[in-house]
Amino acid sequence: MKYYIPTKVYQEIDAVKVHAEELAGYGSYALIVTGKYSARANGALADVEAALDAYGKKHVQYDGIEENPSVETVMKATEFGKRNGVDFVIAIGGGSPMDAAKAIAIMLANPEKDAEYLYESAAHTKALPVVTIPTTCGTGSEVTGVAVLTVHAKRTKASLPHRVFPVLALADPKYLKTASKKVIGQTAIDALGHMIESYLNTTATDYSRMFVDQGLKVWARSKDALLGMREMTDEDYSNFLLASTLAGMAIAQTGTTIPHSLSYAITYELGVPHGISIGYFLPGYIWEADIADQEYLLSTIGFSSVDEFADFFQVVSDCGILPEENIRQVVDIVAENKAKLALCPYPLDKEVLLRIASWRK
Amino acid sequence: MKYYIPTKVYQEIDAVKVHAEELAGYGSYALIVTGKYSARANGALADVEAALDAYGKKHVQYDGIEENPSVETVMKATEFGKRNGVDFVIAIGGGSPMDAAKAIAIMLANPEKDAEYLYESAAHTKALPVVTIPTTCGTGSEVTGVAVLTVHAKRTKASLPHRVFPVLALADPKYLKTASKKVIGQTAIDALGHMIESYLNTTATDYSRMFVDQGLKVWARSKDALLGMREMTDEDYSNFLLASTLAGMAIAQTGTTIPHSLSYAITYELGVPHGISIGYFLPGYIWEADIADQEYLLSTIGFSSVDEFADFFQVVSDCGILPEENIRQVVDIVAENKAKLALCPYPLDKEVLLRIASWRK
Repeated sequence: MKYYIPTKVYQEIDAVKVHAEELAGYGSYALIVTGKYSARANGALADVEAALDAYGKKHVQYDGIEENPSVETVMKATEFGKRNGVDFVIAIGGGSPMDAAKAIAIMLANPEKDAEYLYESAAHTKALPVVTIPTTCGTGSEVTGVAVLTVHAKRTKASLPHRVFPVLALADPKYLKTASKKVIGQTAIDALGHMIESYLNTTATDYSRMFVDQGLKVWARSKDALLGMREMTDEDYSNFLLASTLAGMAIAQTGTTIPHSLSYAITYELGVPHGISIGYFLPGYIWEADIADQEYLLSTIGFSSVDEFADFFQVVSDCGILPEENIRQVVDIVAENKAKLALCPYPLDKEVLLRIASWRK
Repeated sequence: MKYYIPTKVYQEIDAVKVHAEELAGYGSYALIVTGKYSARANGALADVEAALDAYGKKHVQYDGIEENPSVETVMKATEFGKRNGVDFVIAIGGGSPMDAAKAIAIMLANPEKDAEYLYESAAHTKALPVVTIPTTCGTGSEVTGVAVLTVHAKRTKASLPHRVFPVLALADPKYLKTASKKVIGQTAIDALGHMIESYLNTTATDYSRMFVDQGLKVWARSKDALLGMREMTDEDYSNFLLASTLAGMAIAQTGTTIPHSLSYAITYELGVPHGISIGYFLPGYIWEADIADQEYLLSTIGFSSVDEFADFFQVVSDCGILPEENIRQVVDIVAENKAKLALCPYPLDKEVLLRIASWRK
């Protein structure tokens, strides 16, 4: 049984300002990795720049990270970082900039390698220090070593074999307040998926289940806010942010399993947002589990049945039924992935996979 | 709210053998820090030497660490390490060798400093890498940055201001099997103290309470074995070892509070073993807490009242009533420690402290 989460996390209002010295201490020239808009809109970029300026550290922004970032984007950002001579990387945003930042940090620390290296297995991965500043509440990437990129050549998303744990995560719930309700809902479902997949997992341990248990309880405190039954409060943002970090700590121990695997090609082919394509497969994944596990999960989240959970997902995601041909395609892909199937605690063959994938109908 | 436990932990049978390559990877010449006998008796020393030999790493043993090790001992071991040119430190044992190893690792990385440096505050403490191999089930020192030494000049024990987190902890429950029932009981009570003091603590967070909750549940699974109601099983050793690590993770976030503070001079003056001098003050510390906290703690451990808990402690520790003059002395000391008093979630003055300290009578 293993425990490993070396990332230092501060969750608090004004985390970047309060811990500016520590943030600035990881290098002398920062590459700030972001998407196009949100890091500006939520104030995180300005906070980071001010923190670095206060300690006389240079910085440059790369704002070209798209949703589900590609290997090509990572290589472009790496070139940009090289030209500027940066020595640490700060990611602001959701999973896309954070995962991209880890990959960029690998490529910058291995300047003699080309893009192929990203998917080559390495026992001891060298990488520049990465600091993460989550501004959504789903990925958990701020505390995991995992980076998932889009591989156009394979028409899907795939995890790197390298592990790059951020040295520092500065989690300030106020950055979530400018996100749309849709983004909060989608990312909160992603976090829920991490917890359910970490729990229903053959590699689950007392450690991973501890994170899941605490994460589900914190998540459940605020789930009604996702239904629009009341306004989101500061407390809700804080709960969803903490739950997503706890969920990240859980999958840092176990990894994800079937719903994530099924989701990747759905997101690639149909452009369904990551959280929604995860949530789509969660009811079926729970439904096939043994009764005690189902009851634990549903009662801890605060649902009385899988149907109630599925209805909740429908309201939050507004997602219809996916085309049968796409469902069949992803089932075909995942059925071949023996390593992933082995993570599921109940027997899985193509038939069961198809039942999970077509549970919503 | 902060989370920081960078130590990588493997808990499993044969952990040293299975992770020998990783263990050997932290340097080229290891100083193995132990007490006089137990590391040999339980097989841990032989396992470590074999692992280092297998990867061609030199090693030398310093077996002079006494219970509640002193600054003087740390300096002797440091000289010994310097003479041999070691570059990493492996501690085998309970809290004494582990805490000493952290202090030795600091002194070896700062060869120009003298013993005074141990109690000087430093923003960024340099230390050689420390690997810990716990062979009791109390301290949690395998996953904390804290080291407590005996300071003869002050006639007590005191924590260093430096923080040195082990890089790796190899927790193999089989090493506990040669420990006496008394040592298992005393150290299990120490771990319980860590959890109770972390819970009843003004710096408690969702993170620290998560560790406490899981640790108490794991501890409670095996508590009957401490009473001699049945033979200790492999499962019991594993549970107590895991609970003590979880308890260490909890105090790594919050620190300890009143019972630990009261205990140090009791151990110094009367030679009462650490775990017992902690346990002595736990019933009173719980008794003064608010009812909801009391009920949570007692029910999670599996006791119906503070009295039942105190009876349990009596059976496990076989500890009579401490002399009143020593009780008054430690109360006088702790009453002056405003920083410690502030960690207690309920109002504390000398009168309340005296009630806690004299609860058993």
